[in-house]
Amino acid sequence: MVATLSKNWEKYIAMKQWGGRFKEKSIEEVEKFTCSLEFDHRLYKYDIKGSIAHAEMLGRCGILKIEEAEKIIDSLKEIQREIEEKGIRIHHKYEDIHTYIENKLSKKIGELSGKLHTARSRNDQVALDVRLYLKDEIKEVAEKIKEVQKSIIKIAQENINIIMPGYTHMQQAEPVLFSHHIMAYFWMLQRDIKKLYFCLKNIDELPLGAAALAGTSFNINQEITSNLLDFTTIVPNSIDGVSNRDFIIDCLFIAALVMMHLSRFNEELIIWSTNEFNFIEIGDAFCTGSSIMPQKKNPDVCELIRGKCGRVYGNLISLLTTMKALPLSYNRDLQEDKEVLFNSIDILKNCLSVFSKMLLSIEINNIFIEKHLKNKYLCATEIANYLVKKGLTFRVAHEIVGKLILKSSSNNKSLDEITLDEFKEVCHLFEKDIYDLLDLKKVIDIKKSHGSTSREQVERQIKKAESIISN
Amino acid sequence: MVATLSKNWEKYIAMKQWGGRFKEKSIEEVEKFTCSLEFDHRLYKYDIKGSIAHAEMLGRCGILKIEEAEKIIDSLKEIQREIEEKGIRIHHKYEDIHTYIENKLSKKIGELSGKLHTARSRNDQVALDVRLYLKDEIKEVAEKIKEVQKSIIKIAQENINIIMPGYTHMQQAEPVLFSHHIMAYFWMLQRDIKKLYFCLKNIDELPLGAAALAGTSFNINQEITSNLLDFTTIVPNSIDGVSNRDFIIDCLFIAALVMMHLSRFNEELIIWSTNEFNFIEIGDAFCTGSSIMPQKKNPDVCELIRGKCGRVYGNLISLLTTMKALPLSYNRDLQEDKEVLFNSIDILKNCLSVFSKMLLSIEINNIFIEKHLKNKYLCATEIANYLVKKGLTFRVAHEIVGKLILKSSSNNKSLDEITLDEFKEVCHLFEKDIYDLLDLKKVIDIKKSHGSTSREQVERQIKKAESIISN
Amino acid sequence: MVATLSKNWEKYIAMKQWGGRFKEKSIEEVEKFTCSLEFDHRLYKYDIKGSIAHAEMLGRCGILKIEEAEKIIDSLKEIQREIEEKGIRIHHKYEDIHTYIENKLSKKIGELSGKLHTARSRNDQVALDVRLYLKDEIKEVAEKIKEVQKSIIKIAQENINIIMPGYTHMQQAEPVLFSHHIMAYFWMLQRDIKKLYFCLKNIDELPLGAAALAGTSFNINQEITSNLLDFTTIVPNSIDGVSNRDFIIDCLFIAALVMMHLSRFNEELIIWSTNEFNFIEIGDAFCTGSSIMPQKKNPDVCELIRGKCGRVYGNLISLLTTMKALPLSYNRDLQEDKEVLFNSIDILKNCLSVFSKMLLSIEINNIFIEKHLKNKYLCATEIANYLVKKGLTFRVAHEIVGKLILKSSSNNKSLDEITLDEFKEVCHLFEKDIYDLLDLKKVIDIKKSHGSTSREQVERQIKKAESIISN
Amino acid sequence: MVATLSKNWEKYIAMKQWGGRFKEKSIEEVEKFTCSLEFDHRLYKYDIKGSIAHAEMLGRCGILKIEEAEKIIDSLKEIQREIEEKGIRIHHKYEDIHTYIENKLSKKIGELSGKLHTARSRNDQVALDVRLYLKDEIKEVAEKIKEVQKSIIKIAQENINIIMPGYTHMQQAEPVLFSHHIMAYFWMLQRDIKKLYFCLKNIDELPLGAAALAGTSFNINQEITSNLLDFTTIVPNSIDGVSNRDFIIDCLFIAALVMMHLSRFNEELIIWSTNEFNFIEIGDAFCTGSSIMPQKKNPDVCELIRGKCGRVYGNLISLLTTMKALPLSYNRDLQEDKEVLFNSIDILKNCLSVFSKMLLSIEINNIFIEKHLKNKYLCATEIANYLVKKGLTFRVAHEIVGKLILKSSSNNKSLDEITLDEFKEVCHLFEKDIYDLLDLKKVIDIKKSHGSTSREQVERQIKKAESIISN
Repeated sequence: MVATLSKNWEKYIAMKQWGGRFKEKSIEEVEKFTCSLEFDHRLYKYDIKGSIAHAEMLGRCGILKIEEAEKIIDSLKEIQREIEEKGIRIHHKYEDIHTYIENKLSKKIGELSGKLHTARSRNDQVALDVRLYLKDEIKEVAEKIKEVQKSIIKIAQENINIIMPGYTHMQQAEPVLFSHHIMAYFWMLQRDIKKLYFCLKNIDELPLGAAALAGTSFNINQEITSNLLDFTTIVPNSIDGVSNRDFIIDCLFIAALVMMHLSRFNEELIIWSTNEFNFIEIGDAFCTGSSIMPQKKNPDVCELIRGKCGRVYGNLISLLTTMKALPLSYNRDLQEDKEVLFNSIDILKNCLSVFSKMLLSIEINNIFIEKHLKNKYLCATEIANYLVKKGLTFRVAHEIVGKLILKSSSNNKSLDEITLDEFKEVCHLFEKDIYDLLDLKKVIDIKKSHGSTSREQVERQIKKAESIISN
Repeated sequence: MVATLSKNWEKYIAMKQWGGRFKEKSIEEVEKFTCSLEFDHRLYKYDIKGSIAHAEMLGRCGILKIEEAEKIIDSLKEIQREIEEKGIRIHHKYEDIHTYIENKLSKKIGELSGKLHTARSRNDQVALDVRLYLKDEIKEVAEKIKEVQKSIIKIAQENINIIMPGYTHMQQAEPVLFSHHIMAYFWMLQRDIKKLYFCLKNIDELPLGAAALAGTSFNINQEITSNLLDFTTIVPNSIDGVSNRDFIIDCLFIAALVMMHLSRFNEELIIWSTNEFNFIEIGDAFCTGSSIMPQKKNPDVCELIRGKCGRVYGNLISLLTTMKALPLSYNRDLQEDKEVLFNSIDILKNCLSVFSKMLLSIEINNIFIEKHLKNKYLCATEIANYLVKKGLTFRVAHEIVGKLILKSSSNNKSLDEITLDEFKEVCHLFEKDIYDLLDLKKVIDIKKSHGSTSREQVERQIKKAESIISN
Repeated sequence: MVATLSKNWEKYIAMKQWGGRFKEKSIEEVEKFTCSLEFDHRLYKYDIKGSIAHAEMLGRCGILKIEEAEKIIDSLKEIQREIEEKGIRIHHKYEDIHTYIENKLSKKIGELSGKLHTARSRNDQVALDVRLYLKDEIKEVAEKIKEVQKSIIKIAQENINIIMPGYTHMQQAEPVLFSHHIMAYFWMLQRDIKKLYFCLKNIDELPLGAAALAGTSFNINQEITSNLLDFTTIVPNSIDGVSNRDFIIDCLFIAALVMMHLSRFNEELIIWSTNEFNFIEIGDAFCTGSSIMPQKKNPDVCELIRGKCGRVYGNLISLLTTMKALPLSYNRDLQEDKEVLFNSIDILKNCLSVFSKMLLSIEINNIFIEKHLKNKYLCATEIANYLVKKGLTFRVAHEIVGKLILKSSSNNKSLDEITLDEFKEVCHLFEKDIYDLLDLKKVIDIKKSHGSTSREQVERQIKKAESIISN
Repeated sequence: MVATLSKNWEKYIAMKQWGGRFKEKSIEEVEKFTCSLEFDHRLYKYDIKGSIAHAEMLGRCGILKIEEAEKIIDSLKEIQREIEEKGIRIHHKYEDIHTYIENKLSKKIGELSGKLHTARSRNDQVALDVRLYLKDEIKEVAEKIKEVQKSIIKIAQENINIIMPGYTHMQQAEPVLFSHHIMAYFWMLQRDIKKLYFCLKNIDELPLGAAALAGTSFNINQEITSNLLDFTTIVPNSIDGVSNRDFIIDCLFIAALVMMHLSRFNEELIIWSTNEFNFIEIGDAFCTGSSIMPQKKNPDVCELIRGKCGRVYGNLISLLTTMKALPLSYNRDLQEDKEVLFNSIDILKNCLSVFSKMLLSIEINNIFIEKHLKNKYLCATEIANYLVKKGLTFRVAHEIVGKLILKSSSNNKSLDEITLDEFKEVCHLFEKDIYDLLDLKKVIDIKKSHGSTSREQVERQIKKAESIISN
C-alpha cells in the first residue's frame, strides 16, 4: 500500500504540510500574509540542529530504523552546508523555515523525509528553535555587555584623577570622581547580565515531546533529545510547552532595561559634548558633521542609541499586547513573537558593539570641567558636615551654609575667596581648617562610606568590578 | 577659482556630505550603524519629487540659472527611471536615500549637483519626504478601509434576515440582527477614516525653507514649491518645522486604533468559528490546516491580524518614547521615526487588504445560530418592558422576569414552553399577547430608537453607510 | 398588583440593580473588587444631568406622567445640591455612582425612582456620562493650553532682542532669536488644541437610546434628549454606542502628545538651568532646595512635568491594551477606562496650570548666553552661503568653511579675530563684507524664508499666534 | 551659639527641609503639585523602620550619643503607634512622608530631631524605604500567587476524570484532561514566583550611606544598618544607589507577566461561561446580573481581571518612559516611580486574592463538554499515528485521515459511526482495533511523553506541583 501511495508522494510534500482537508486553494495574497520565512529563516541552524537531535532520538528508540535516522541526519547536515553557501530563497510558497527545510529534505530523500515529523509537531518544533536560538544569543549579548563594562573600567582607571561635579536634579551637588560617576553604569549593566543568565535558566527546558499540545503516543525518550541539545530539564506541561512565550518576553524586557541604561549614559555623553558643557570630546569616527554647518560635530551614534531605546520598549509592549487574553494553547498570533525578538536582539548587539568602541574614543576636557568647579559651591555639604561635627544639628548647619552661599554668590565670589572673618560673621564655629574643605580633592577623599566617591573607595570598586568581569 | 577647485570636485561628492572638518575616517561599523538606506530607500520617489520642485523653484527665483535647473530636473527624472528599472543598491557607504540620490546626480552632472543643496538642508528635506510619503499612503490606507467597509455592507445586506444573540459580557443578552452587529464595525472604521483625513490636513504644511533649523538667507519663494508639491500652507516656525514628528505619531496612533478595531472583529470571528459556537465558516483560502491534526481548520488570517495589533501598538509607543524629553531641534534620534512608520503602514495595508477579502468568504451557519437561541431567554428585556408598559416600575418588572427565567431554567424549559397560567402565577399582568414577545423577529422589530436593531433601523443604517462610502 | 408589590419595594432598590436571579449573596471582597464608586464618583454631576434630561424626555413623550418626571427631576437636583454640600460617601455597597444616585433617589421618592430606568440601561448611561464629562474637560484643558501659549507669547515678546544658539544634535548650529526657539512650542501646542477640538466633535453623539445594546422598544424621542444635552447627533449603531471607547482613547492620546511636548520643553529648561549652561533662572517658587546641599536650586517642577509624561503614556497603552481583542458589546473590562482617563486629565490640567505660571517666572541670563556665542562659529552657514552667492557650489563652500573653522579653533581664535588675509588664504573670494556675517544680529536678520528666525519673520509669527489665541 | 540659634529652631523645622537659600515663598499650587504625601504615606512604616536602624547605628558609632539615639528611637516608635491609631493627615504642607515624620519628630524632641538627618539624605532614605516596602510586598504577592496555585491543584485533583477538547487556534485539536489544561496555568504562575524571588535578591542591597549621591564623610558603619534591616550587602556605587530604580521596574514587569497569565486564564473562563460553550458555571458570588436583562449572569470578576491587565502593562511602560534618557543621579522625575508601583501591587494582590476564591466556586458542566466531543474528530491525530505505526509516513497518514474526516463530516456522521469497511475503503491498513482510538479516554491515556495529557502523566505533574507548593 505504501508503494501505491508512494507513487505520488511528491504531491503531498509539495503541498503545505496541512493540505489534506482543504477544498479551495489558498490565494497568493494569503500565502504572503501568513508566510514567516522572511524573518524566521534565521532560525535555520537551530531548526536543523533540533531535527538532527530528534531524528537521532527516534533512531535510538527504534521509532525510526538506524539507517533511516542516519540518512535523515546526513541530509540535514548537507542542507545546512548548502544554506550556508548559497543562502535561503525567500518565497512565500514556503510557509516558514520549517517547511522550507522539510521541502529541501524531501527533495533529497523523498518519502522518508515525512518520518522526521513523527512524534513532533510544528508547535513544539518552533518552541524548540527559539529556545535554541536564545541560548546562543543571550550569551552573545552578555559578552557584548561585558565589552562595554571593560571599556568603562578602562576609562575609570585611566582617569582616576579627574574630578567632576556630581549632579542631582542636573544641578551641581557635590564633587565626585569622574571614574565614580562612570562606574555607576558598570553596575547597571552588571544587573542586566545577571538577569540574562537568570533568563537562560528559564529557557533551559526542552519543549519537544509536547507535540501539537497534548504530548505524543510514540514511545520517545525526551532525556535523549534533552542531552543532545544540552537541556537540563523537560517542560512539565505540554499545553504550556507550546503556548509559553514568557522567556521571549523576558528577553524583550531585559533588552528594554539595557537600552534604558544605555539611553541614560548616552544622554549624558550628549550633554557633556555640548559646546556649553564641553566636558568630553567623542572620537570623530563616531560623530558626523553637518551638511549645512561645517563647524558642527554631531554625536550621532549617541543619539541613535538613545533613540533606539524607543524601538526596544515598543517591541516589549508588542508581545505583551499580543499575549494579552490569548486562550491556550498555540495560536497563530504567537508567530508575532519573532520579528520583535530578532529586532530587539539585533539592536542590542549593534548598540553594545559600537558603544563599547565609542567609549574608548572619548577624550576628557579636564580644563573645561575645572572651569565649572571654580566657585567651590560643591563643598557646601562638607562645610555643613563640618558644623555638625562641631555640635550643630544638620538642619541648623544647613541653614548657615545656605546663607554663606547666598552671600558669596551675591558678591560674585567663589567660596575660597571669602575671608575667615566673613566666615565667622555667619557662624563663629568656623576655624581656619575650613579652607581644607574648599579643596575639592580633599572633599572627595574625606568620604568614608562604602561605595562612596573617595579615591580609596572608587579604586576598591573598580577592583571588584574587574574581578567580576574576569570570571 | 571655481575651475581650480573643480578639478577635484569629485573628491567632495564622493565623501559624505559633511566630510570637511573631520580628521579621522569613520569606521565601517559606524557607517553601518548610522546608515538608514536599508529602510528609507522607499522614499526615493518622494525625495526626487521634492528635489525637482526645489530645483524648479530655485530656477524660477533666479537662484539657479534656468538651464541649470532644467539639467538637474532632467537628471533627477532619469535617476527615478533607473531606480524603477534596476532598483537601489543598498550599501552603507550611502548614509541614506538623500545621499544615494545626490551621489547618482553628481555622477551624471558633476559639480552642478551640489547646487541642488542651495537653500535646503537634509533636515527640511527629510521632513518633506515623509510628508509627501504620508500624503499618498494615508489615502491608500483610507481606500483599503473603505474596501473593508464595503465588505461589511455587502454582508449586512445579504444577511439582513439572520438573527443572532447580541452579547454583553459575552453572555447572550438580547436578539439582534446579524447585520446590526456587523455594522458596528462599519462605524468604528468610519471614525478611523475621519481621523486619517484630519491627519492629512495636519500634514499639509510645507517644511522646505526651514533649512537646517533657522530658515535660509536665499531669496527663495516657498509659495512656488508649495504649489508644485500641492501643499496648502508653510510651516510657521522653522525650528518646529525640522523637529516636528507629530504627524507621524498621529498616523501610528490611528494605525493602532484601526488594528484595535480589527483585533476585536477578528476575535469575534475566531470565537464564532469555534466548534462550540459554529456561527460561521471562514473560506478555506483564509485558513490553514494542522500539520498533525487533519480535522482542523484554523482561522490563521484572523489570528495573525489579531496578533499584529501588538506590533502596531508597539510602534506607537516606540516613537512616543523616542520623542520623550528630546530637546529641539533636529536630533539623530528622529531617524527612528521611519522604520516604525513603514512597518505600521505595511501591516495596516496588508491586514485591511486580506481582511476585506476574507470577510466576503464567510458563510453564516444560520442553523447553528438558531440552536443557540431556542430557550428564548433573549426576550427577557422585552418581557420586562411589557410589564413596565402595564404600569410596573422597571425595577419590579425586572425582578419578576428574573423569577420567570429561574423557573424555566430550573425546569429545563424554554420560555415559550411556559403556559399562560404559569406566567400568571408569577405576575397576573401577563396576557396572551406575551407570546408575541417570544418571537425573536418580533422582539427585534419592536425596537424603536434611532440606531437600534429593528430591521427598519438597520436598513436605514446601512443606507446611510452606503451613501457615506459612495462619496 | 402594583400596590401589593409596592409594600416591599424597598427590598428591591436596596439590592444591587440586578439582584433578582441570584441565589448566593456576593461576598464583600467581590463587592470591593468590582466597585467603581471610588473613582467614578466624580461623574455625579454628569450622571444627574443626563438623568434629568432623560426624565424630561420621558415626560414629554408621555412615557412618564409630567408630574412623575418633575418629581424625579426635582429630587435629582436636590441630590446634586446635597452632594455638593456634603460630598459622597464612598462605600462598596454602592456599585458605582449610578447606583449611588439611584439609591438616593429611591430614598426620596420611593418606587417612582425605578421609572427613571425606563428605556435606559447602565450601558448607555455610563457612555453618556463620560461623554458629558469630556465635553467639559476638553474645553478646560484647551483653556489651560492657551494659558501656556499666552505665557510663551509674552516671553517671546519681552525678549525679542535676545539671541541664543540654535541647536541641532544639541550642538550649536546657527544663531536664532530666543523668541523663535520658544515659539516652536507654541505651534506644537496649537496642534494639540486643534486635535482636542476635533476630538470634541467625535464625542458629540448622543448614546442614550442604545439601552443595553440593542436599542429600546419604548417610544422615546432621542432628539429631545440630544437637544437638552447639547448633542448634535445620535450614535448610528446601538451596539457600537455602548462599546465604543474610541473617544476616550483619543483623549488619552492627545494627553500623551501634550505631555510629550511639555517633556521636551521642560527638558530644555532643565538643561538651560544647569550651572554649565546657565541660560535661565527659574523662579524660586517653582524650585526646591536640597536637604543636604544648601547651594542647590532644583528645577523640581520641570522634572516632575517631564517625569509625568511616563504616566500619561502608560495610561494610553493601558486602555489600548484593555480594548485589544475585546468582543462586542459592553464588557466589564470597559470599567477600566475611567481611572486612566481621570488620571491623565488631572495630570494634564495640573501640569499645564503650574507650567504656564512657571514660564512667567523665568529670567533669562543674557550675559551667560552671550558668552557661549563668542567664537562666532554659528555664522558658518551664512559664510558658506556667502561663497555660494559668489558662484561656488554649496558643497565646495561647505568644504572651505570647514577648513576655516578648523583653522580658527586650532588657533583658539574666534572667527572675527581672523584677519582678512587669513580669510583670503583659505579662499580668495572673501572680501571685507565678510565681517558683516560675523555679527550675529545681522546673520539672524539676513534670513528670508517664511517661518525663519529673522526678527521680521519672528514678529510676524508672534502676531499670527496672538490672533489665533485671541479667537 | 547653638543656644542662640536654638531659640528659634522651630522656625527651621517648620519650613521645608531645604528652605535656607530661598528668597521667595513657594506658592500653594506648587506645593500641591510637588507633594507626594498623598501616595507615599503608605511607606510610613518603612520610613520609621529605616530611621530607627539609622539612629541606632549613629548611636553605636558614636556619631550620636547613646541617649540621643534612644530618644529618637523611642519617639519614632511612638509616632508609628500614633499613625496606626489616628492615621496620617494628608496635607501638602508636608512635602512627603519623610518630611511628615520628621516634623512629628521635631514636635516631640525639638532640635534633636535634626540629628537624625546626619549622614543621610532623602535620596538614600527614599531608596531604602521602597526597598523595605518591596521586601514585604513581594513575599505577600508570592503568597497570593500560591493561593491561586493551590486552587488550581485542588480543581485539577477533583476533576481528574473530566475530558475536554484541547485547543490550538481555538479549534478543537486533541482530547486532554481538564486537569492538564488547568495545570498549564500552574506552571506559568510558578515561573512568576521564581522571578519574584529572583527580584527579591536584587533588592537585597542597602542604599543607606549613599547620602545625596557621593557617600558621606561621617564615620558610619553600614554593616550595622545592613544587619538591623536584614540586608545582605551594600550598594557598590553611591551614585547608582540613589538613582537606581531597576528593582521597581522589575516588579512592574513581573506584575505585567502575572496579569498577562491571569488575563489568558480569565479569557478562557469567560469563553467557557458563554451560553454557547457552557463548559463551566462560575459561582454567583463572583458574577453580577444585568440591570436590564434578568436572565444574564455576567462573569464580571473575570472581565475586570482581564481588563486590569491593561493598567499593569501601562504602569510598566510609565516608569520605563520616565527613566528613558534620564541623566544621573537623583532627579525629581523619580518620584513618579511610586504611584505606578503601588497601583500595580494593589491590583495584583486584589486580583490574585479574589481569583483564588473564584476558581474554587467554579462548577464544571461535564454533560455540555461531552456534547462538544461527540463527533470524535479529536481522535484524528492518534488515528494518523496508528497508520504511521503501521509503516506509513506521517505525511501520508495525515492525508488519509484528512479524507476520513471530510467523508464523515459531509455525511454528518461522527467518526465512531463509520463502519470498518468504510475505514478500509480509505485505507486498507485499518483494522478493528481502530475503534479503540475512538474512545477519548484511551486516546488520552495512550500519550507517553513527559508532561503529556495521559492520566498517569497528569497525576505525576500534580504531585510535582504539590511538592513545589508545600515547600
